[in-house]
Amino acid sequence: MYSFYNDYSSPCCDEILEAIANARNNQYDGYSLDTISDQARDKIRRTIGRADCDVHFLVGGTQANLTVLAMMLRPHEAVIACTSGHINTHEAGSIEATGHKVETVAGVNGKVTAKEVEQLVLARPDEHMVKPAAVYISDSTEIGTIYTLRELEELREVCDKYNLGLFLDGARLFSALSSPLSDITLPDIARLCDVFYIGATKNGALFGEAVVITNDKYKDGFRYIMKQRGGLLAKGFLLGIQFDCLFTDGLGYRLADHANKMALRLYNGLQQAGCRFISPYCSNQLFPILDNRLIEKLSKDYSFAIWEAGERESVIRLVCAFNTPEEKVDEFISAYISLI
Amino acid sequence: MYSFYNDYSSPCCDEILEAIANARNNQYDGYSLDTISDQARDKIRRTIGRADCDVHFLVGGTQANLTVLAMMLRPHEAVIACTSGHINTHEAGSIEATGHKVETVAGVNGKVTAKEVEQLVLARPDEHMVKPAAVYISDSTEIGTIYTLRELEELREVCDKYNLGLFLDGARLFSALSSPLSDITLPDIARLCDVFYIGATKNGALFGEAVVITNDKYKDGFRYIMKQRGGLLAKGFLLGIQFDCLFTDGLGYRLADHANKMALRLYNGLQQAGCRFISPYCSNQLFPILDNRLIEKLSKDYSFAIWEAGERESVIRLVCAFNTPEEKVDEFISAYISLI
Amino acid sequence: MYSFYNDYSSPCCDEILEAIANARNNQYDGYSLDTISDQARDKIRRTIGRADCDVHFLVGGTQANLTVLAMMLRPHEAVIACTSGHINTHEAGSIEATGHKVETVAGVNGKVTAKEVEQLVLARPDEHMVKPAAVYISDSTEIGTIYTLRELEELREVCDKYNLGLFLDGARLFSALSSPLSDITLPDIARLCDVFYIGATKNGALFGEAVVITNDKYKDGFRYIMKQRGGLLAKGFLLGIQFDCLFTDGLGYRLADHANKMALRLYNGLQQAGCRFISPYCSNQLFPILDNRLIEKLSKDYSFAIWEAGERESVIRLVCAFNTPEEKVDEFISAYISLI
Amino acid sequence: MYSFYNDYSSPCCDEILEAIANARNNQYDGYSLDTISDQARDKIRRTIGRADCDVHFLVGGTQANLTVLAMMLRPHEAVIACTSGHINTHEAGSIEATGHKVETVAGVNGKVTAKEVEQLVLARPDEHMVKPAAVYISDSTEIGTIYTLRELEELREVCDKYNLGLFLDGARLFSALSSPLSDITLPDIARLCDVFYIGATKNGALFGEAVVITNDKYKDGFRYIMKQRGGLLAKGFLLGIQFDCLFTDGLGYRLADHANKMALRLYNGLQQAGCRFISPYCSNQLFPILDNRLIEKLSKDYSFAIWEAGERESVIRLVCAFNTPEEKVDEFISAYISLI
Repeated sequence: MYSFYNDYSSPCCDEILEAIANARNNQYDGYSLDTISDQARDKIRRTIGRADCDVHFLVGGTQANLTVLAMMLRPHEAVIACTSGHINTHEAGSIEATGHKVETVAGVNGKVTAKEVEQLVLARPDEHMVKPAAVYISDSTEIGTIYTLRELEELREVCDKYNLGLFLDGARLFSALSSPLSDITLPDIARLCDVFYIGATKNGALFGEAVVITNDKYKDGFRYIMKQRGGLLAKGFLLGIQFDCLFTDGLGYRLADHANKMALRLYNGLQQAGCRFISPYCSNQLFPILDNRLIEKLSKDYSFAIWEAGERESVIRLVCAFNTPEEKVDEFISAYISLI
Repeated sequence: MYSFYNDYSSPCCDEILEAIANARNNQYDGYSLDTISDQARDKIRRTIGRADCDVHFLVGGTQANLTVLAMMLRPHEAVIACTSGHINTHEAGSIEATGHKVETVAGVNGKVTAKEVEQLVLARPDEHMVKPAAVYISDSTEIGTIYTLRELEELREVCDKYNLGLFLDGARLFSALSSPLSDITLPDIARLCDVFYIGATKNGALFGEAVVITNDKYKDGFRYIMKQRGGLLAKGFLLGIQFDCLFTDGLGYRLADHANKMALRLYNGLQQAGCRFISPYCSNQLFPILDNRLIEKLSKDYSFAIWEAGERESVIRLVCAFNTPEEKVDEFISAYISLI
Repeated sequence: MYSFYNDYSSPCCDEILEAIANARNNQYDGYSLDTISDQARDKIRRTIGRADCDVHFLVGGTQANLTVLAMMLRPHEAVIACTSGHINTHEAGSIEATGHKVETVAGVNGKVTAKEVEQLVLARPDEHMVKPAAVYISDSTEIGTIYTLRELEELREVCDKYNLGLFLDGARLFSALSSPLSDITLPDIARLCDVFYIGATKNGALFGEAVVITNDKYKDGFRYIMKQRGGLLAKGFLLGIQFDCLFTDGLGYRLADHANKMALRLYNGLQQAGCRFISPYCSNQLFPILDNRLIEKLSKDYSFAIWEAGERESVIRLVCAFNTPEEKVDEFISAYISLI
Repeated sequence: MYSFYNDYSSPCCDEILEAIANARNNQYDGYSLDTISDQARDKIRRTIGRADCDVHFLVGGTQANLTVLAMMLRPHEAVIACTSGHINTHEAGSIEATGHKVETVAGVNGKVTAKEVEQLVLARPDEHMVKPAAVYISDSTEIGTIYTLRELEELREVCDKYNLGLFLDGARLFSALSSPLSDITLPDIARLCDVFYIGATKNGALFGEAVVITNDKYKDGFRYIMKQRGGLLAKGFLLGIQFDCLFTDGLGYRLADHANKMALRLYNGLQQAGCRFISPYCSNQLFPILDNRLIEKLSKDYSFAIWEAGERESVIRLVCAFNTPEEKVDEFISAYISLI
């Protein structure tokens, strides 16, 4: 049995494990106030090309999303997201639990458009409605698509026009930036977003999301809110060690590049065999449409998520990870071909 | 420089590191729904001697406290804690951020007494006040003391009388149970508390708190609230691996026993040299009272927390951990003696 | 200038004013614990035909909605509502501010259908999503339509099937029940809903909503939550006096009947003159579609809300109230006819 | 039976009743956006002597407190109050339900001192604790005492020093300002506080609290939060009518002056008969200490609150109101004298 279920099913890459092992007799200050965390923050700032941004380390994505939005929004303010946005569907109402409404737009290919944002804002003119104050986007998105530079610039423009903060959920940002189709760099992200994070959990680390705050307006009090929401890890140096690894010699990009390449190999193999997908190849997640009987047969040897169940055919999700072996990809393609 | 600052300044014990390394090519289901997490849950249930309790794994203590209390309390209900209780002082208002008041009692030696609980409940007769619905205790407490069986039984009694849930924060439960002064076992804890947790972060793990729910009333919906508050770790199998280690061959107890023994050695050494403490030796935390000039000198070679600053003398906190070397304890004692 | 803007633009009916004036030298207990409030509660229970329901008086509708849902839902639970539901659109995120997601269905004619409820529940299978635990409906709805007995029974059935509480916002319940098209009575509402309220603010009182809780499951702690959310009126006897009036000699129904009749007169007059509406006549709110130039001209003498602005024609809302004079209705019809 | 239980046991003064009766055929805009509310706001601004403050009308005190503090505080921020402060004791955890901790100081005579504020702030140095960001005071206080100008100026100073907002709960502000012992005016309050409110519920109105925001920092978004928390009254013109009355020809002050005078008469009468009090006469609330048997006998003809029950003697609360008749005061004194 091999799993294409997600990109967080194995512990971590060897480099990270080794770094932790090497540190095991050291003593560090708690709560990411240690020297290795500082070093990791500096490496991130250098990669971004900006010295003036705050960098905070959190353990997971839902935690990062709710902490950032609790910080960004006043009580009556809402965040705009795609209907398919992770905060709207798969975080158990975490944003509402911080007191805020998630206002949704349909999106195009899983991406929020500037036009939708404008329409939504204009339709909320007074205090009987919530006040939209932030836009949440994911890159890569929940269906594996990625934003173009043009799309991000348009979002920035509409955010400036209506005084909205732009927040990018980068749980799979390494994968998005490493995509062969990407025309965006980390400095672009930092220039266009007010807050974003760089995910490590889904890119070869044990865990970890590095929240980067570029807009001064959103810097104050963040560590308080981290602590209050249970997100200030006692052994924060573990986050420092891992991000230090990922930002040394481009390791984070290399791991994502591998996952993306395996996904492309899988995509090409399946497509050449006639398989259809709900969205074109972009990053490490694929969403093929398969006959239900085929799904049943493949399930004997492979695990994957049923994304959208249908009566005759369904959409499944196949995810490649930092450690997906080429031979498993090829075996899956062969299995597919032999079964159709 | 050696640190007695806390018990979470080094990564983890060798056994845990090795277990993670051994698992590094495995694939697991996410969110602690994997087989190793199940195995760890079973070992914990067996150690407790009860098959009917729910076991959930969370990353940290503040997270565990707020998740458990969000689950236990209805909107108008409050939790009773000691003034010195961690949720009242050092969690940045996390419980209030879930909507609940922390009602405080003075406590005796850092411990909530049954009598105080009763008085507080009786003084809140109607809907103009919050309704106390749970009691929060820590064992060992924030000042290193431990509950006796008698004290816990009295708390259970008052909780039954007034329909309160009893919740024990066991961030340092291994240390409490391993104390030479303890007359309590884990089955006692499970019998007397409705919810408690067993801390691993401060006992040699990378991170992790195992929440045990023994009362059916509090079982429903807990994983939802974990997810909603950002506490459902994607790579939950890491928690499973660590707790599996700690509950294999008594590792958790052995680690705590070492920390306690080092603290006792330190306590005896200092006390014989004339040092006073704010509370007697109980577990791995010591609170000696030192002259401020002495503190300044010791600070050159040792790091520790100033617990309570005074004009001439102050209380410091010295913490021994799973990996505190005997020679560092002895060196500290010698340094103390040479400086007084 | 005459206003058809809403049904809460004048103080109150004479009967209520007189009752308050008569009481002005009396002394009452506070917080609706007085004898006149008890008397009003009894009259409501008798009208409903059930002695076993709890009746609470609140000042306004948003307050009632948020207090009831704060009471009904656990932290991870959500309420299902129509996209057009008041709690989803016009209460400034009040439900989210209590921590809960409002999950929406499209609805048919402003009404939630049982089928939609079932589909939504089935699509939320696990703890990564919120757990639907209540259904919110308004009767009459935000677009003036009313539920049939059959529709309510189907909702009750699906709620029973999936363990959902059924909560009816009756800000305009008197109007709905007094509609010539209604096949429902107050006892039906009480039998089919777990919680509902009877609005007085929009039916001739100064203010007031009487929350009725018929399901024991939802009774505990409600006064605490009222107090906590700022909804326990100090001079609660004012609510008692008003509801006592409305439930004496059918006053509440008479006032609503008048409003409904004026709306019907207005509807017939406009329709006979060729006017179209977005929904058929049901109760005291009408939603005609008018040419924008006509709207501009009518605005000189009449005030009303623009419900949905279009480029050439728009939907306006005309509301009749307990004190709308027949001649104002006729004048409006004449004005309409003279301007088209 | 005559009640000295509180100052909100009768509907309202004749002037207010008459004003509402006069308005009963008018039509007004909703939500306090009407002309009479504007007129009342202007009168309040003129009385204060400042044109640049925002004035909002809310129904009740708990509602005002929670709305103001929800607006003033960011998620990790706390409000400082007296242990006896209304928000800490008698509002069912309303502030905590908005997510914020109430940090308490002991106070002197029911009043927060500047020194206590400073000590509390200095003891919360980092993100493990909440961040104090506002100070809540009541004037008159919960035990009837009033702030001196000097005390308020010192509080202002410490608030400026530590960047804290100063919020005054004026549920009984008319009574405080009308006290013969007061050296403060409404312009003083406006100059020294960032936000305060002027209570009408306890001063002869049906209901109503006028929130005045003098600091620009706290103005944005307040109506949104009012709406969201259920505090934006549909028939807001009722609040406008009442405050217009209270600020016409000094009615509000006259009503309070009467209540204060009756309390003074009662105080003098009882004191001359040998009665002791827990605090000296200041405003319309008195707290005499009576023998429990005497309390029992007085209870046959008078109702009042038991403030602090003791074994042999207890503290009761006697409150005079806008409509307390002189003869009832004299009768009570006679009854007391005849029974001791």
